[in-house]
Amino acid sequence: MLTRIFQSLREHSPLVHCITNYVTVNDCANMLLACGASPVMADDMREVEDIQSIASALVINIGTLNPMTVPAMFKAVKKANDMMHPVVFDPVGAGASNLRTETALQLLNESYFSVIRGNISEIKALALGSGDTQGVDANQSDKVTADNLEATIAFAKNFASRTDAVIAITGAIDIVADAHRAFCIYNGDAAMSRITGTGCQLSALIAAFLAANPEEDFLEVTLAAVCAMGLCGEIAKARLSEQDGNATYRHYIIDAMYHLQAETLEKGAKYEVR
Amino acid sequence: MLTRIFQSLREHSPLVHCITNYVTVNDCANMLLACGASPVMADDMREVEDIQSIASALVINIGTLNPMTVPAMFKAVKKANDMMHPVVFDPVGAGASNLRTETALQLLNESYFSVIRGNISEIKALALGSGDTQGVDANQSDKVTADNLEATIAFAKNFASRTDAVIAITGAIDIVADAHRAFCIYNGDAAMSRITGTGCQLSALIAAFLAANPEEDFLEVTLAAVCAMGLCGEIAKARLSEQDGNATYRHYIIDAMYHLQAETLEKGAKYEVR
Amino acid sequence: MLTRIFQSLREHSPLVHCITNYVTVNDCANMLLACGASPVMADDMREVEDIQSIASALVINIGTLNPMTVPAMFKAVKKANDMMHPVVFDPVGAGASNLRTETALQLLNESYFSVIRGNISEIKALALGSGDTQGVDANQSDKVTADNLEATIAFAKNFASRTDAVIAITGAIDIVADAHRAFCIYNGDAAMSRITGTGCQLSALIAAFLAANPEEDFLEVTLAAVCAMGLCGEIAKARLSEQDGNATYRHYIIDAMYHLQAETLEKGAKYEVR
Repeated sequence: MLTRIFQSLREHSPLVHCITNYVTVNDCANMLLACGASPVMADDMREVEDIQSIASALVINIGTLNPMTVPAMFKAVKKANDMMHPVVFDPVGAGASNLRTETALQLLNESYFSVIRGNISEIKALALGSGDTQGVDANQSDKVTADNLEATIAFAKNFASRTDAVIAITGAIDIVADAHRAFCIYNGDAAMSRITGTGCQLSALIAAFLAANPEEDFLEVTLAAVCAMGLCGEIAKARLSEQDGNATYRHYIIDAMYHLQAETLEKGAKYEVR
Repeated sequence: MLTRIFQSLREHSPLVHCITNYVTVNDCANMLLACGASPVMADDMREVEDIQSIASALVINIGTLNPMTVPAMFKAVKKANDMMHPVVFDPVGAGASNLRTETALQLLNESYFSVIRGNISEIKALALGSGDTQGVDANQSDKVTADNLEATIAFAKNFASRTDAVIAITGAIDIVADAHRAFCIYNGDAAMSRITGTGCQLSALIAAFLAANPEEDFLEVTLAAVCAMGLCGEIAKARLSEQDGNATYRHYIIDAMYHLQAETLEKGAKYEVR
Repeated sequence: MLTRIFQSLREHSPLVHCITNYVTVNDCANMLLACGASPVMADDMREVEDIQSIASALVINIGTLNPMTVPAMFKAVKKANDMMHPVVFDPVGAGASNLRTETALQLLNESYFSVIRGNISEIKALALGSGDTQGVDANQSDKVTADNLEATIAFAKNFASRTDAVIAITGAIDIVADAHRAFCIYNGDAAMSRITGTGCQLSALIAAFLAANPEEDFLEVTLAAVCAMGLCGEIAKARLSEQDGNATYRHYIIDAMYHLQAETLEKGAKYEVR
């Protein structure tokens, strides 16, 4: 399954339209190129519909909002929904400010998202309508552990059912769920959280995977993307010398995606169905 | 010729004012520093004239537009034109949205550009007034090949004549033309297209080359910059290990520019006059 | 002293809110993560108070201004001042345009800054109310040398006294001063000025150091951050191969911060009291 999904991505080179934050936008673009997709970043109200109409997927990432991009996000999602394009929503920092929480909730209310990906605090903020996200990082008390895994899976399935989206909660253990089924993913490395934007890159990556696999089950497609990102984190980690830190690690993850083969993904993916 | 042009750049350290997209702006800044120039990014209406007045060249890159930067671009170009500073225009994504095409055409109409650099689809969109650019990448059907090279050169010369600018069409084969003469450049590597922003960096680089060589023939100065960028792509490629991908490649290209010597450029440049 | 300050940073992982330019924002985020802090970038008027209220420090960097972020800066500083959070001010390009100089002066007038960090031309522009900063780089004629060191120290102490802030003037020799005491710091490497954003990263770093050390003397905390940045520049320099240039150097500096130990900082710091 992962092989087929990943090969389709490499073959189709989908154009992915991102409305994303200015902190990690360059990494998102290079990650999209690394996986075989083509990025286009456009957030001006006057062009988001044109751009979305030539693209195959949309990413909405609220990592840095401003009064100009917020209405552009609504317009772009509407266009993508009208065209039946997959849309990935990354509610960066939802729960950390009213603006982010409210914007995220309103987007959720007015739009259809194929996948919603965030850390546990962000997803809780969306589900509960408020939160205490620690900036753009999950709150320590929210962290997914062996102890609360069962409950978190149930929460993810429930939120998937309410939103009709695949829910991807990423952290030490990643959870990908729809209303009926969940995957727990054990790929990745803790040091990835010391790099800015690995979450943003994953959201962009999911959009590329979806765009190239419109006929597949989006739960499985999201699983493939999450495994691929985590696996690249592992491959990159193995290359690091003693002096390499988070900057070099960042590039090696993108490099790993550039060279990733379908069979490596199939063999290296560590997940279980729940 | 290339030696003289390149040494002048290293000696003069020109200040280059960029109004550019937020995706690749950091790479443009580091590439400018690598070549010996000094970057200043400023796109607020209220300061673009001040900043342009202390700079030696201007780059206008429409990779990400917004309602605030578009008028700032017009104001900055006007100031640069008044001061007889060289201006490089990079119509990123012209042909992919009405906003980009219209903005580019209006800029072209009201301003004088020293050099216009883009991929073949972007330049065609400017010349024809509309297009079907695939996001920020050239459309496959537009690609410059041995078969259509002659016609593309004629097109570039014609557009150069109409705009009174040097036209640089970059791709597998790069074409640099004024109304009377064209160069075909064979430096570079296909993998450069898998890095976001190599085109943006080249546009910034051309501006630095022009700023340091105001008395030279701008066709030859542009040729020097295009050869230098392609050659750095080759030098960087030769350093890549089996595991290095587009992220590491990106940095090695900037590193190569940092160390490039005039004689290396002179020897390594692969071009012909047409 | 440096050991204690640095260990406190590693232990506390403070959340640092940055309103900064879009050129080097990604480097600032990764540098904050490298030192053990957590970055949050937010510049929308409607959320800067919320974000500042959960953060432990604020960075105001005017490297790229626009009509939306300027009022957000004033609002964020006011909130930080009300909450007694440390605020670092980086007046990038003050003296290069009226907008930058005026915005910086107005911020200075209406707010309390814990630390003001800039190159000599920027700090002079603030102190004199006008300047001729060469873009974002210091003017050659302003450079701090052995000849004008004494006078520059006196100037820094005087400006510290007027503003009640610690003044950090960075360049070949770094000067950190309050009204009564100054440190001259001899760490770092000239090649750091060929990387965009080392100054911005240092400003973010100072904010992280302050946030983790609210009870310490901010002059000494700033000294620790400036020494740490310079030392990482030296450690990274030693790793560079003959082909590595400013791009690789940039990442190695962040990598060096990721691995920096308190004892290495204590031993490697090169400074004198003046």
